[in-house]
Amino acid sequence: MSPANLSKTSPSLEEIYKPIRTYLPQVEERILEILATPNELSSEVIRYFFKSKGKFLRPALVLFGSLLGSDIPESAFLTAAALEIFHSATLIHDDIIDSAYLRRNLPTVNTKWNPQVAVLVGDYLHDKAIGAIFDTKSDQVIAAFLKTAGVVCDGEILELKEKNNFNLKEETYLTIIERKTAALLATCLESGAVLSGLDMERVLALNRFGIYFGMAFQIMDDCLDFMGKENEFGKTLGADLQAGVLTLPLIRLIQLLDEKGKAEVFSKVKSGLSHTQLGDLVLLLEEYGALNYSIEKANEFTERASLELAIFPDSPVRQSLEALLQYVIKRNR
Amino acid sequence: MSPANLSKTSPSLEEIYKPIRTYLPQVEERILEILATPNELSSEVIRYFFKSKGKFLRPALVLFGSLLGSDIPESAFLTAAALEIFHSATLIHDDIIDSAYLRRNLPTVNTKWNPQVAVLVGDYLHDKAIGAIFDTKSDQVIAAFLKTAGVVCDGEILELKEKNNFNLKEETYLTIIERKTAALLATCLESGAVLSGLDMERVLALNRFGIYFGMAFQIMDDCLDFMGKENEFGKTLGADLQAGVLTLPLIRLIQLLDEKGKAEVFSKVKSGLSHTQLGDLVLLLEEYGALNYSIEKANEFTERASLELAIFPDSPVRQSLEALLQYVIKRNR
Repeated sequence: MSPANLSKTSPSLEEIYKPIRTYLPQVEERILEILATPNELSSEVIRYFFKSKGKFLRPALVLFGSLLGSDIPESAFLTAAALEIFHSATLIHDDIIDSAYLRRNLPTVNTKWNPQVAVLVGDYLHDKAIGAIFDTKSDQVIAAFLKTAGVVCDGEILELKEKNNFNLKEETYLTIIERKTAALLATCLESGAVLSGLDMERVLALNRFGIYFGMAFQIMDDCLDFMGKENEFGKTLGADLQAGVLTLPLIRLIQLLDEKGKAEVFSKVKSGLSHTQLGDLVLLLEEYGALNYSIEKANEFTERASLELAIFPDSPVRQSLEALLQYVIKRNR
Repeated sequence: MSPANLSKTSPSLEEIYKPIRTYLPQVEERILEILATPNELSSEVIRYFFKSKGKFLRPALVLFGSLLGSDIPESAFLTAAALEIFHSATLIHDDIIDSAYLRRNLPTVNTKWNPQVAVLVGDYLHDKAIGAIFDTKSDQVIAAFLKTAGVVCDGEILELKEKNNFNLKEETYLTIIERKTAALLATCLESGAVLSGLDMERVLALNRFGIYFGMAFQIMDDCLDFMGKENEFGKTLGADLQAGVLTLPLIRLIQLLDEKGKAEVFSKVKSGLSHTQLGDLVLLLEEYGALNYSIEKANEFTERASLELAIFPDSPVRQSLEALLQYVIKRNR
């Protein structure tokens, strides 16, 4: 989804990114520099993948973290680029895992080329990201990143293990999304802050902000899988469920249904949801308030995130982080 | 293949590993420590994969490199473990890429579980290996490793790109194997040597030894794909070719064949080789001296490798490295 599409919602990413807008092109340049390779196939795939821009959320958080300290040191640009590359590597591998056809409205690397190319180019991006992080020469950032890389992977393995588990507990779901999504977002803010010399108390506050923000972000993403219009995100509705991944709305619904209701939902999902059945399921989620429950949970997390910002004096950057919390809840509803 | 199977050949890996035999269990311990995880699925896959032991060549080279300096520092054990883990990660991902069923006579991770688990566990191992390398606190080792990780990936992407290219040049083949195989083996020796304080001249000599040794190792591996007995390596004969990967023996044969002969080989390979056709191809490789040509090339590399050892005084470790060159050429013929 390009930032242009988002300007319809309020607040828009464009407005939120105002304090860092002039810096983002430098991050893009850095990404292409880090990934430059004489290998034709690799550079073709890399050009293709980065042509369709995502939200650039991870670089934005690194830059926000730095600006809350003082300015943006060179090492923060490098880190911003590295974390976007790392995120891209996980997306490319995720699309193999989910056998996904579309990403940002374009065929995925595993579809346009093949899963083999996707495995290797993902590995390549992964290695280049780590190399760039190492080039920051910041032991704290390197250690935080390596730890997070392990946590992200752990979260994804846990998600894979719990696929098709219709008794998935809400706590396990929260553990999965904290690891697979929130940890990296927190590390973005933390790294940016560390590199611009922010004190430990504020660094830790930003890390917690990142965790809570990330939880809200993923819960809303999971809600949107049942809510948005088909094709609006370049993805199919109900895609998580089709892939056997249970998310908060469905976990909530299953909590509330009686045995007969559960059995009906199970059998529908297991036989592969038709378009009509998906529609019925969405109605059921509405009827039982499962979507509202999930959005409420996301709201709780953004409220906790907001409290973490109290330590910072008012500034355009702090306002942007506040607005980001609004954006997460309000986007594309 | 377990070291036990190799004792039939001469010199055996068991004999070669004599100077480091007492240290190898420590590397195994370190591997399990580094990979310890509360994640049940991950630890199940990890236990399974490391249960069937490979040649442990990479840890052995790290330890040999260290012993040529002085003793084996703690950081070298860590590096030895990390490089074996990194190698394992590439094997797990390679098996997805090649859709391989067997590895060391056991079902591959992508077969026993699924490609999704293999992608993620490979990523997990990859991250843990890099984390362990970072824990050595040696900038030189970290930089060498990160560079090599990129080179290995580059080599694999190049190999993938050149799949089914029946006009593959010998030089391109040599570039591929230098990157995908030799670079990591060289880094093993280099890292071990750096960590035990060896001077730069000797470190560079060991790096070159590793490159030449690695080239010979891969060429012979590729020859064995046409030579060994079925199942002896826990892999199928002609597997590379079936997967579209052209190696030196076939590249040489194609150089020598006239247009009619080439066309015959192409059509056979393209339609998928039957067992009989593979037998015919092996006879053709013999008839045109393509296997002997390749073995001769491997020999040239071991000779160049041997010259690099001249800088070191005679010692059991130097003798082991010499013997390793013999082993590479003579194994399982």
